[in-house]
Amino acid sequence: MRDRTQVAIIGAGPAGLLLSQLLHRAGVDCVVLERKSQSYVEGRIRAGVLEQGTVELLERAGVADRLHREGLPHHGFRMALDGELFRIDMHGLTGGSSVTVYGQTEVTQDLIQAHQSRGAPLHFEAEDVALHELEGGRPHVTYRHGGAEHRLDCDYVAGCDGYHGVSRASMPADLLRVFERVYPFGWLGILADVPPCDDELIYSNHHRGFALASMRSPTRSRYYVQVPLTEKLEDWPDERLWDELALRLGPEAAARMTRGPAIEKSIAPLRSFVAEPMRHGRLFLAGDAAHIVPPTGAKGLNLAAADVGLLAEALTARYRSGTVAELDLYSQRALARVWMAERFSWWFTGLTHRFPEMDDFARRMQVAELSYIRASARAQAVVAENYVGLPRAYALGAGIAPRPVVAA
Amino acid sequence: MRDRTQVAIIGAGPAGLLLSQLLHRAGVDCVVLERKSQSYVEGRIRAGVLEQGTVELLERAGVADRLHREGLPHHGFRMALDGELFRIDMHGLTGGSSVTVYGQTEVTQDLIQAHQSRGAPLHFEAEDVALHELEGGRPHVTYRHGGAEHRLDCDYVAGCDGYHGVSRASMPADLLRVFERVYPFGWLGILADVPPCDDELIYSNHHRGFALASMRSPTRSRYYVQVPLTEKLEDWPDERLWDELALRLGPEAAARMTRGPAIEKSIAPLRSFVAEPMRHGRLFLAGDAAHIVPPTGAKGLNLAAADVGLLAEALTARYRSGTVAELDLYSQRALARVWMAERFSWWFTGLTHRFPEMDDFARRMQVAELSYIRASARAQAVVAENYVGLPRAYALGAGIAPRPVVAA
Repeated sequence: MRDRTQVAIIGAGPAGLLLSQLLHRAGVDCVVLERKSQSYVEGRIRAGVLEQGTVELLERAGVADRLHREGLPHHGFRMALDGELFRIDMHGLTGGSSVTVYGQTEVTQDLIQAHQSRGAPLHFEAEDVALHELEGGRPHVTYRHGGAEHRLDCDYVAGCDGYHGVSRASMPADLLRVFERVYPFGWLGILADVPPCDDELIYSNHHRGFALASMRSPTRSRYYVQVPLTEKLEDWPDERLWDELALRLGPEAAARMTRGPAIEKSIAPLRSFVAEPMRHGRLFLAGDAAHIVPPTGAKGLNLAAADVGLLAEALTARYRSGTVAELDLYSQRALARVWMAERFSWWFTGLTHRFPEMDDFARRMQVAELSYIRASARAQAVVAENYVGLPRAYALGAGIAPRPVVAA
Repeated sequence: MRDRTQVAIIGAGPAGLLLSQLLHRAGVDCVVLERKSQSYVEGRIRAGVLEQGTVELLERAGVADRLHREGLPHHGFRMALDGELFRIDMHGLTGGSSVTVYGQTEVTQDLIQAHQSRGAPLHFEAEDVALHELEGGRPHVTYRHGGAEHRLDCDYVAGCDGYHGVSRASMPADLLRVFERVYPFGWLGILADVPPCDDELIYSNHHRGFALASMRSPTRSRYYVQVPLTEKLEDWPDERLWDELALRLGPEAAARMTRGPAIEKSIAPLRSFVAEPMRHGRLFLAGDAAHIVPPTGAKGLNLAAADVGLLAEALTARYRSGTVAELDLYSQRALARVWMAERFSWWFTGLTHRFPEMDDFARRMQVAELSYIRASARAQAVVAENYVGLPRAYALGAGIAPRPVVAA
């Protein structure tokens, strides 16, 4: 079977689905192909903190009704040093910005529902997806679906298929420049139907290791502790994990912590990764396909949303007025924001985690930096503006784009 | 010969001399002992940027007249990324704070002159200084001077004799906790009687390595480049050094740079070092005797001044009202400030230098951080408030003192 669309979108995670929805609202035709099943995609437990810019994109995409009903606006978050809490007043320090706690799972479900209610072309379980002729004028995608071979002709391909997807792998290896940092620990996460211990998130630097108290709703909590990568899930029965959380979050949080059985428990590695450029011919990468951040600071989903926001604008301009100028700037513009978020995520991870190679001096640098942040409204404002999402002008401003790395 | 004083001060660097001068103004009796000769002490080329708090202490000590005539007030400084300059508006971003460029050499000369004009006890070339009975009620110092053996009885000993001095070495090793970081490079400095290339300092991160354009006066310049520790002075004739500076500071600065013969040239290693506590019995450490910072950010002399400011207040309170409460708090209070300055100096060094082990990801983190600082007034304000010197309240505020390092 042979079909045609304007934009072929690879991947039905939040990036691909949001792009499809934004393009639909702008009158651009697209088809979404996803390797996994709908139930798998809807069941993935991921991030839960949306920057204001991400919420605005979801509004523009027309999928923010439930988010506004059920999402929890957060005006601040807490940090802890060895169990002692202090607060970052995001709202006050940024002149009114905030974030919204609403699970990525919910975002994905809302987007899938919007697609299916309008009968949009969204194909799950599309196998053997392959990209062709990305450099020529006739790009197309082949895949198998429902036992049949398909060919989808298109003008552009949007690679929203994550770190392991086919999109980045379809770019010539000698064109790609890869930057990477692997962290010597993972996050052991637990999801439980218990009320959260605080109405705001708590990022805790404890000498036993990092802990995070988060939530998905007033009745569903999400907690994490840093563990060595050698750790096994079976060594962490629920009670051991709750005990460890109580220690690392400190007495104030522990006193308000409600324990309950895990409805999900997993260990995830932490990684920083950027591939440059984010464009090759007719292929544009967005989200995890091009970059990964460690979860500290909750930038992953928000960066993906910012990518597709830029890409949707560029594609819309292309179809409305025929100009490719914005498409030509996409990679550079997206990367400028990506690198700033990579820096924040790397810094926030370094500030809050225990590193195996950390000596007493390095530990004191963490303690001094947290003490300084706790004391300085200026330092808190820097944390706050990064957490709520930097103004687009920072990345797009004159000459702010990262320079090429030059060898000595 | 046997003498008696209230406070025996070991070391006639700026810390010891300033302490002596502050105590003199407060009516506290003291004697300063220095191992080196007066001409050696007066000739040492060191730092040249005074925080406002340091200037205020020099005023209080009555030695700020020439500083006010000849010192250069600086309201900002420049940073550079691969030769492109941007400015940190210290004055505007901190609500009116600034720094004064005035050589440590000049400060030392002013202090020595103040001592000698009032005939204060200040003994150069005091050999074999040894501290005794620091834990008992009868501390005393023995030394050789002018061929005779001396014993100086005192109430307290102030150890202002630097990293290699006898004071810290006189503390029981099992009491001392030492934190250290040695950097894999040094600063090659040149002093020349040429006008500076800019009326403000330039801290440059260049992919060839760090460079700093500084000055001592409108006709005397001080420049530095980062070099490997294996480098030898004889491999750096003046012209090679000027060429390297022109490259690393970038075309804008290079066009205004006047070259001239070196009147001093040297390579200095960079080190972070803190010894805790800063007190043992009747002995109080101040300045380099207790802590070293890398020179990036110019905190060394200012930290020493802050230490002796605190110590002079505590000793004055002891002799005016008999209370030892401030003396008992000295180590904790001084260290709270020390750790914040150690953190800034370490961070600023990491941001601006090329590290041999730095991979592409680490380089991008530097570039992203500098790009972020360049774009964000909030980030600039954080740099500015650290550079002019953090408010004392940050370190002394409720619970801000560094916590003990706890093993996992």
